[in-house]
Amino acid sequence: GEADSLQYKPFILQLLEWSLRGVSQVILANNPVSGALILCALAMDSPWQALLGTMGLLSSTLTAVIIGQDSAEITSGDHGFNGMLVALLMGIFSSAGDWYGWLLLPACLGGATCTFFHSGLARVFKPWDLPVSVFPFNTIILLYLACTGPTNPYFPHYDFTQPVAKESLNFTHLDTTQLLCAVPLGVGQIYATKLLSSSLLILVAVFLFSPILCIHALVGSAVGTLAGLSVVVHHTSLFTGLSGFNGALGCMVVGGLCFRLSWTTHLFSIAAAFLSSYLDIALSNTLAKVGLPACSWGSTLTITLMLVLSASHLSSYRIPCSQNGP
Amino acid sequence: GEADSLQYKPFILQLLEWSLRGVSQVILANNPVSGALILCALAMDSPWQALLGTMGLLSSTLTAVIIGQDSAEITSGDHGFNGMLVALLMGIFSSAGDWYGWLLLPACLGGATCTFFHSGLARVFKPWDLPVSVFPFNTIILLYLACTGPTNPYFPHYDFTQPVAKESLNFTHLDTTQLLCAVPLGVGQIYATKLLSSSLLILVAVFLFSPILCIHALVGSAVGTLAGLSVVVHHTSLFTGLSGFNGALGCMVVGGLCFRLSWTTHLFSIAAAFLSSYLDIALSNTLAKVGLPACSWGSTLTITLMLVLSASHLSSYRIPCSQNGP
Amino acid sequence: GEADSLQYKPFILQLLEWSLRGVSQVILANNPVSGALILCALAMDSPWQALLGTMGLLSSTLTAVIIGQDSAEITSGDHGFNGMLVALLMGIFSSAGDWYGWLLLPACLGGATCTFFHSGLARVFKPWDLPVSVFPFNTIILLYLACTGPTNPYFPHYDFTQPVAKESLNFTHLDTTQLLCAVPLGVGQIYATKLLSSSLLILVAVFLFSPILCIHALVGSAVGTLAGLSVVVHHTSLFTGLSGFNGALGCMVVGGLCFRLSWTTHLFSIAAAFLSSYLDIALSNTLAKVGLPACSWGSTLTITLMLVLSASHLSSYRIPCSQNGP
Repeated sequence: GEADSLQYKPFILQLLEWSLRGVSQVILANNPVSGALILCALAMDSPWQALLGTMGLLSSTLTAVIIGQDSAEITSGDHGFNGMLVALLMGIFSSAGDWYGWLLLPACLGGATCTFFHSGLARVFKPWDLPVSVFPFNTIILLYLACTGPTNPYFPHYDFTQPVAKESLNFTHLDTTQLLCAVPLGVGQIYATKLLSSSLLILVAVFLFSPILCIHALVGSAVGTLAGLSVVVHHTSLFTGLSGFNGALGCMVVGGLCFRLSWTTHLFSIAAAFLSSYLDIALSNTLAKVGLPACSWGSTLTITLMLVLSASHLSSYRIPCSQNGP
Repeated sequence: GEADSLQYKPFILQLLEWSLRGVSQVILANNPVSGALILCALAMDSPWQALLGTMGLLSSTLTAVIIGQDSAEITSGDHGFNGMLVALLMGIFSSAGDWYGWLLLPACLGGATCTFFHSGLARVFKPWDLPVSVFPFNTIILLYLACTGPTNPYFPHYDFTQPVAKESLNFTHLDTTQLLCAVPLGVGQIYATKLLSSSLLILVAVFLFSPILCIHALVGSAVGTLAGLSVVVHHTSLFTGLSGFNGALGCMVVGGLCFRLSWTTHLFSIAAAFLSSYLDIALSNTLAKVGLPACSWGSTLTITLMLVLSASHLSSYRIPCSQNGP
Repeated sequence: GEADSLQYKPFILQLLEWSLRGVSQVILANNPVSGALILCALAMDSPWQALLGTMGLLSSTLTAVIIGQDSAEITSGDHGFNGMLVALLMGIFSSAGDWYGWLLLPACLGGATCTFFHSGLARVFKPWDLPVSVFPFNTIILLYLACTGPTNPYFPHYDFTQPVAKESLNFTHLDTTQLLCAVPLGVGQIYATKLLSSSLLILVAVFLFSPILCIHALVGSAVGTLAGLSVVVHHTSLFTGLSGFNGALGCMVVGGLCFRLSWTTHLFSIAAAFLSSYLDIALSNTLAKVGLPACSWGSTLTITLMLVLSASHLSSYRIPCSQNGP
């Protein structure tokens, strides 16, 4: 009895730490305190989304324990964040409304599948020392959406056939305050939250882990909004921060995580933010034709490209992945 | 004269053995007797299909001999099965009816191209010790369909713009007997046959090679039918076994071929069957938007994922490909 | 003053040589004289296109210098040709007419992005000793088109939703002279020029570098036209040489660049031309459904397949890439 409970309690506490680290890993931090803050920010916006996210997180972390993934990866939360994102996005894309309990089933299964996909991709990427990053999330959410389709009677979701590109210029209605708000909102969109207060709390969580990462998040989100303006995307995309979050992720990885800080790296991170954002727009327009969203493919592919660059002036700043987390 | 014919006859006999092994390799067996049985099963359903399949089989095997592929691979039938599948599916998808002679031309060319593709992919996959499996078939058949299109005057084929997902629930019409029949039919669909007797004969051929493989084929097909039910696919897909064949292939490779048998492997093979089936549904829905079928991409990609898994509790059971055939 | 200008002038001259080599690299030659001839051929057709191409060329070459790419690659023009092609195709696809100055902006940015992409892909392809070839061009031009879309107010371009496949047979209108003209025009289409005299000048430029390469260009273009006829593509595609240019590229690389000349290689290059052309038609039909053109993906993928072939009768003729350029 007692020995068992002693054995059992630490595992629960350990799992809690791994999971909170996993929450913060989504935004490239690795810190349980940041993770707890972010979970609060999500619960502030929608408790249902926070619950869904937690289920995905636990499901993928436990799957990693069961199939015997590397324990160092598990303890740093590497196997939680993909599952969490899949569950969060399933909730956001669902048109069945909040507290639709059946959604917990695909959330858990999707989370578990992420771990399998992570495990396989890790070996595929090994020859190039590339991180698995959010490839599993991006793949599994697209498969879920393609599998169920917008008319599924159990798991209905919104339609994505609307392209991001707009058809007519209409700059007179552009509101500068809304555009400025879009910058922090872009960071919040990484966790699919549309609330300004939640987004600011997430920024605080990032700042706690690394102020430099936080600055790059804001710069990247601003660059993404600018890129969106330059090809005239819909105002909804601009004002909800959807145009910014890919830029933020691209900028953060290059400027604050995988490369040593320098002026070159800084310029390079801005280039990465632009490329992430344009790639996101291109993929959104194309995937809309088959009824799918672009998720964070834009930043994921850009980051992967930046990490395999062989150009000596840039690659000399790269920090090897094995020292670094995601 | 006589020396020549002596030289010549063995080659014909050898080619026959390689080809029959190739026929059985489609369903992961490696046994000329199983191959002969399966060819009979196909001829029972449609002699034209059997002829087409044989032409594809011979064409890809001979191309392998001519371009100088590894002889161990040729003798085990590795270069026949992709060509055979391409030819069979060209026949099934063609809307020109049986005995449309012109179809032999793309069947032979498609078979030959499969061998080129096999040869290239084998080197690409080498760093991960992955088998080429049915990647060539899946690629070449999609290219053929995309190249000709549904309105081609020489090689017309059916339209694939209809998604697999159904729009309304209608479980009252579900017939249990038909659902039970769908399980063996799913195994038959691996060879694109829709006849119950042919499917049963194919199961006998698999049983002759390995009873364990046969059980996994049935379990996988059942799992696939279940997965189809869970996302409400069209009844035609369910009852013709189309929902089951990807599950069957996924289950067979994991449970009976590439991993040592154990309880873990058994559970793992069921997970693979579910993943294969859901992936197949997702790909079917998405590819339908560009007018293409999903063929066996679902199981092929799932199997590839399962074989690159680095998770220690699963990968420890893996049997290296070089010892094993496909 | 003087020392500076001495230092400065050679760099300009060097850049000129690298760029002219880059121009000729598009068509697999590596010779500044051929490059100058080709640039003249382009200016003959359209001075605006020649200017656009030059901007893309300079932009990508200078980016390579700035980010510190391998200098041997830069001096042989490896970093110019992708940027040039992106800029040329942006011009051809633009529906804003000639001398639309804003187009210089995406042309320069696209050229610079090509260099990043080249740098990353080079490391990805290293395990298989594969050249980066025109992968960057093909990727960046598709992203540009997907990103802007046909209705963009700043950068409008033509629609690509029309499939290449034709719906009815109408051979009576086939004009043999036009078909014969299509063969050299197919070589011109590599540089997106539709003028017969420009195409002939480009052929002269190729002949100057290597007569064998020139013959394979013509054979490949003829094979591509034949392949187009066999699946009944639109007459416009046939007569403008669009059906031929993928075949020409596939045939040139196999027959005149990456494999030692022999009868086997010659037959092999014709097979490559057929495969390139059919792949181009398949991709054109499929990509048209999402509103994108197939560019030179057909030949690029075919060439890559041919270079990874492990079949001993073919791979024994392969010349390692490191000795050879693109």
